[in-house]
Amino acid sequence: MEAKEKIDIVNRYMAAFGNSDIDLIRDIYAENSTLEDPAGADPIVGREAICEFYQVAFSVGVKLTLTGNPRCAGNYVAFPFTVKTPDMGFEAIDLFEFNEDGKIVSMKAIWGPENMIP
Amino acid sequence: MEAKEKIDIVNRYMAAFGNSDIDLIRDIYAENSTLEDPAGADPIVGREAICEFYQVAFSVGVKLTLTGNPRCAGNYVAFPFTVKTPDMGFEAIDLFEFNEDGKIVSMKAIWGPENMIP
Repeated sequence: MEAKEKIDIVNRYMAAFGNSDIDLIRDIYAENSTLEDPAGADPIVGREAICEFYQVAFSVGVKLTLTGNPRCAGNYVAFPFTVKTPDMGFEAIDLFEFNEDGKIVSMKAIWGPENMIP
Repeated sequence: MEAKEKIDIVNRYMAAFGNSDIDLIRDIYAENSTLEDPAGADPIVGREAICEFYQVAFSVGVKLTLTGNPRCAGNYVAFPFTVKTPDMGFEAIDLFEFNEDGKIVSMKAIWGPENMIP
Protein backbone atom coordinates (compact mmCIF):
# COMPACT_ATOMS: atom_id res chain seq x y z
CA MET A 1 0.00 0.00 0.00
CA GLU A 2 1.44 3.31 -1.08
CA ALA A 3 2.14 5.94 1.57
CA LYS A 4 0.10 8.46 -0.39
CA GLU A 5 -2.93 6.16 -0.18
CA LYS A 6 -2.56 6.01 3.60
CA ILE A 7 -2.25 9.80 3.79
CA ASP A 8 -5.33 10.12 1.61
CA ILE A 9 -7.26 7.90 4.04
CA VAL A 10 -6.19 10.12 6.93
CA ASN A 11 -7.42 13.21 5.10
CA ARG A 12 -10.74 11.57 4.24
CA TYR A 13 -11.02 10.38 7.86
CA MET A 14 -10.64 13.97 9.07
CA ALA A 15 -13.27 15.11 6.59
CA ALA A 16 -15.68 12.34 7.66
CA PHE A 17 -16.07 14.08 11.02
CA GLY A 18 -17.18 17.22 9.22
CA ASN A 19 -20.09 15.57 7.40
CA SER A 20 -20.85 12.50 9.57
CA ASP A 21 -19.76 10.21 6.76
CA ILE A 22 -20.27 6.76 8.25
CA ASP A 23 -19.90 5.19 4.80
CA LEU A 24 -16.29 6.37 4.76
CA ILE A 25 -15.70 4.77 8.15
CA ARG A 26 -17.24 1.50 6.97
CA ASP A 27 -15.07 1.61 3.86
CA ILE A 28 -11.70 2.08 5.55
CA TYR A 29 -12.02 -0.51 8.35
CA ALA A 30 -11.58 -4.25 7.87
CA GLU A 31 -14.47 -6.45 8.97
CA ASN A 32 -12.48 -7.92 11.88
CA SER A 33 -10.76 -4.71 12.93
CA THR A 34 -10.20 -3.53 16.50
CA LEU A 35 -10.32 -0.02 17.93
CA GLU A 36 -8.89 1.20 21.23
CA ASP A 37 -9.85 4.74 22.22
CA PRO A 38 -7.91 5.47 24.31
CA ALA A 39 -5.17 2.88 23.70
CA GLY A 40 -5.19 0.30 26.47
CA ALA A 41 -8.97 0.45 26.91
CA ASP A 42 -11.07 -2.61 26.12
CA PRO A 43 -11.04 -2.82 22.34
CA ILE A 44 -14.13 -2.37 20.22
CA VAL A 45 -14.13 -5.39 17.92
CA GLY A 46 -15.61 -5.62 14.45
CA ARG A 47 -16.53 -3.10 11.81
CA GLU A 48 -20.20 -2.73 12.76
CA ALA A 49 -19.41 -2.09 16.43
CA ILE A 50 -16.77 0.40 15.30
CA CYS A 51 -19.31 2.16 13.10
CA GLU A 52 -21.64 2.48 16.10
CA PHE A 53 -18.77 4.09 18.03
CA TYR A 54 -18.28 6.68 15.27
CA GLN A 55 -22.02 7.31 14.97
CA VAL A 56 -21.99 8.39 18.62
CA ALA A 57 -18.98 10.63 18.03
CA PHE A 58 -20.67 12.20 15.00
CA SER A 59 -23.91 12.76 16.93
CA VAL A 60 -21.99 14.52 19.72
CA GLY A 61 -20.42 16.86 17.18
CA VAL A 62 -16.79 15.75 17.42
CA LYS A 63 -14.49 17.62 15.02
CA LEU A 64 -10.86 16.74 14.23
CA THR A 65 -8.03 19.00 13.02
CA LEU A 66 -4.60 17.78 11.95
CA THR A 67 -1.74 19.53 13.78
CA GLY A 68 1.05 17.93 11.78
CA ASN A 69 1.70 15.72 8.78
CA PRO A 70 0.76 12.04 8.82
CA ARG A 71 3.79 9.77 9.17
CA CYS A 72 3.89 6.50 7.22
CA ALA A 73 6.01 3.40 7.80
CA GLY A 74 5.36 -0.20 6.81
CA ASN A 75 1.69 -0.95 7.41
CA TYR A 76 1.27 2.05 9.70
CA VAL A 77 0.22 5.64 9.56
CA ALA A 78 0.29 7.92 12.63
CA PHE A 79 -0.94 11.49 12.83
CA PRO A 80 -1.25 14.24 15.45
CA PHE A 81 -4.49 16.17 15.75
CA THR A 82 -6.88 17.96 18.05
CA VAL A 83 -10.34 16.78 19.00
CA LYS A 84 -13.07 19.30 19.74
CA THR A 85 -16.56 18.66 21.01
CA PRO A 86 -19.04 21.34 22.09
CA ASP A 87 -17.88 20.74 25.69
CA MET A 88 -14.18 19.89 25.61
CA GLY A 89 -11.01 19.48 23.59
CA PHE A 90 -7.84 17.40 23.66
CA GLU A 91 -4.73 16.58 21.68
CA ALA A 92 -4.29 13.03 20.38
CA ILE A 93 -2.24 10.84 18.07
CA ASP A 94 -3.99 8.05 16.18
CA LEU A 95 -2.19 4.98 14.90
CA PHE A 96 -3.76 3.01 12.05
CA GLU A 97 -2.41 -0.40 11.07
CA PHE A 98 -3.45 -1.69 7.64
CA ASN A 99 -3.82 -5.20 6.24
CA GLU A 100 -2.74 -6.34 2.79
CA ASP A 101 -6.07 -5.18 1.35
CA GLY A 102 -5.42 -1.62 2.52
CA LYS A 103 -8.05 -1.78 5.27
CA ILE A 104 -7.49 -0.73 8.88
CA VAL A 105 -7.12 -3.77 11.14
CA SER A 106 -6.10 -1.88 14.27
CA MET A 107 -6.69 1.67 15.46
CA LYS A 108 -5.22 3.06 18.67
CA ALA A 109 -6.05 6.58 19.86
CA ILE A 110 -3.34 7.85 22.18
CA TRP A 111 -4.48 10.62 24.52
CA GLY A 112 -5.21 11.08 28.20
CA PRO A 113 -6.23 13.58 30.88
CA GLU A 114 -2.96 15.49 30.54
CA ASN A 115 -3.77 16.14 26.88
CA MET A 116 -6.85 18.24 27.53
CA ILE A 117 -6.93 21.70 25.94
CA PRO A 118 -9.33 24.64 26.30
CA MET B 1 2.96 4.36 35.58
CA GLU B 2 1.93 8.00 35.78
CA ALA B 3 1.51 9.94 32.56
CA LYS B 4 3.86 12.62 33.85
CA GLU B 5 6.60 9.99 34.26
CA LYS B 6 6.16 8.95 30.64
CA ILE B 7 6.29 12.57 29.50
CA ASP B 8 9.43 13.07 31.57
CA ILE B 9 11.04 10.11 29.81
CA VAL B 10 10.19 11.64 26.43
CA ASN B 11 11.80 14.93 27.45
CA ARG B 12 14.92 13.18 28.74
CA TYR B 13 15.00 11.10 25.55
CA MET B 14 15.02 14.28 23.48
CA ALA B 15 17.81 15.70 25.62
CA ALA B 16 19.87 12.50 25.32
CA PHE B 17 20.39 13.26 21.64
CA GLY B 18 21.91 16.61 22.60
CA ASN B 19 24.61 15.16 24.82
CA SER B 20 24.98 11.58 23.50
CA ASP B 21 23.67 10.20 26.78
CA ILE B 22 23.75 6.45 26.21
CA ASP B 23 23.26 5.85 29.94
CA LEU B 24 19.81 7.41 29.64
CA ILE B 25 18.99 5.10 26.75
CA ARG B 26 20.16 2.07 28.73
CA ASP B 27 18.06 3.21 31.69
CA ILE B 28 14.73 3.62 29.89
CA TYR B 29 14.73 0.40 27.82
CA ALA B 30 13.86 -3.03 29.23
CA GLU B 31 16.45 -5.75 28.74
CA ASN B 32 14.26 -7.67 26.28
CA SER B 33 12.90 -4.64 24.42
CA THR B 34 12.44 -4.35 20.68
CA LEU B 35 12.94 -1.35 18.40
CA GLU B 36 11.62 -0.84 14.87
CA ASP B 37 12.96 2.21 13.03
CA PRO B 38 11.08 2.61 10.81
CA ALA B 39 8.09 0.58 12.01
CA GLY B 40 7.76 -2.60 10.01
CA ALA B 41 11.52 -2.99 9.57
CA ASP B 42 13.28 -5.97 11.14
CA PRO B 43 13.28 -5.23 14.87
CA ILE B 44 16.43 -4.62 16.84
CA VAL B 45 16.11 -6.95 19.81
CA GLY B 46 17.59 -6.48 23.25
CA ARG B 47 18.85 -3.49 25.20
CA GLU B 48 22.51 -3.80 24.23
CA ALA B 49 21.76 -4.01 20.51
CA ILE B 50 19.44 -1.04 20.93
CA CYS B 51 22.21 0.92 22.66
CA GLU B 52 24.50 0.20 19.71
CA PHE B 53 21.83 1.59 17.39
CA TYR B 54 21.66 4.84 19.41
CA GLN B 55 25.46 5.09 19.60
CA VAL B 56 25.51 5.20 15.81
CA ALA B 57 22.78 7.86 15.76
CA PHE B 58 24.70 9.92 18.31
CA SER B 59 27.95 9.61 16.35
CA VAL B 60 26.21 10.81 13.19
CA GLY B 61 24.97 13.89 15.04
CA VAL B 62 21.24 13.20 15.02
CA LYS B 63 19.20 15.87 16.84
CA LEU B 64 15.50 15.65 17.77
CA THR B 65 12.98 18.43 18.34
CA LEU B 66 9.43 17.93 19.61
CA THR B 67 6.77 19.49 17.36
CA GLY B 68 3.84 18.78 19.68
CA ASN B 69 2.97 17.49 23.12
CA PRO B 70 3.49 13.82 24.02
CA ARG B 71 0.21 11.91 24.20
CA CYS B 72 -0.24 9.28 26.92
CA ALA B 73 -2.73 6.41 27.11
CA GLY B 74 -2.49 3.13 28.98
CA ASN B 75 1.07 1.81 28.64
CA TYR B 76 1.80 4.05 25.67
CA VAL B 77 3.27 7.44 24.92
CA ALA B 78 3.42 8.85 21.37
CA PHE B 79 5.07 12.09 20.31
CA PRO B 80 5.63 14.03 17.08
CA PHE B 81 9.09 15.42 16.36
CA THR B 82 11.63 16.31 13.72
CA VAL B 83 14.91 14.52 13.14
CA LYS B 84 17.92 16.43 11.84
CA THR B 85 21.29 15.09 10.81
CA PRO B 86 24.04 17.11 9.14
CA ASP B 87 22.77 15.79 5.80
CA MET B 88 19.00 15.41 6.02
CA GLY B 89 15.84 15.87 8.03
CA PHE B 90 12.45 14.26 8.43
CA GLU B 91 9.28 14.31 10.52
CA ALA B 92 8.45 11.28 12.67
CA ILE B 93 6.18 10.00 15.42
CA ASP B 94 7.63 7.60 17.97
CA LEU B 95 5.50 5.17 19.95
CA PHE B 96 6.87 3.81 23.23
CA GLU B 97 5.15 0.93 25.02
CA PHE B 98 6.08 0.44 28.67
CA ASN B 99 6.05 -2.63 30.91
CA GLU B 100 4.90 -2.73 34.53
CA ASP B 101 8.36 -1.65 35.67
CA GLY B 102 8.12 1.56 33.64
CA LYS B 103 10.67 0.41 31.07
CA ILE B 104 10.19 0.58 27.30
CA VAL B 105 9.42 -2.87 25.86
CA SER B 106 8.59 -1.73 22.34
CA MET B 107 9.56 1.32 20.31
CA LYS B 108 8.24 2.01 16.84
CA ALA B 109 9.46 5.00 14.82
CA ILE B 110 6.88 5.96 12.21
CA TRP B 111 8.29 7.88 9.26
CA GLY B 112 9.03 7.33 5.60
CA PRO B 113 10.28 8.93 2.39
CA GLU B 114 7.25 11.23 2.18
CA ASN B 115 8.19 12.68 5.58
CA MET B 116 11.50 14.19 4.46
CA ILE B 117 12.00 17.91 5.15
CA PRO B 118 14.74 20.34 4.08
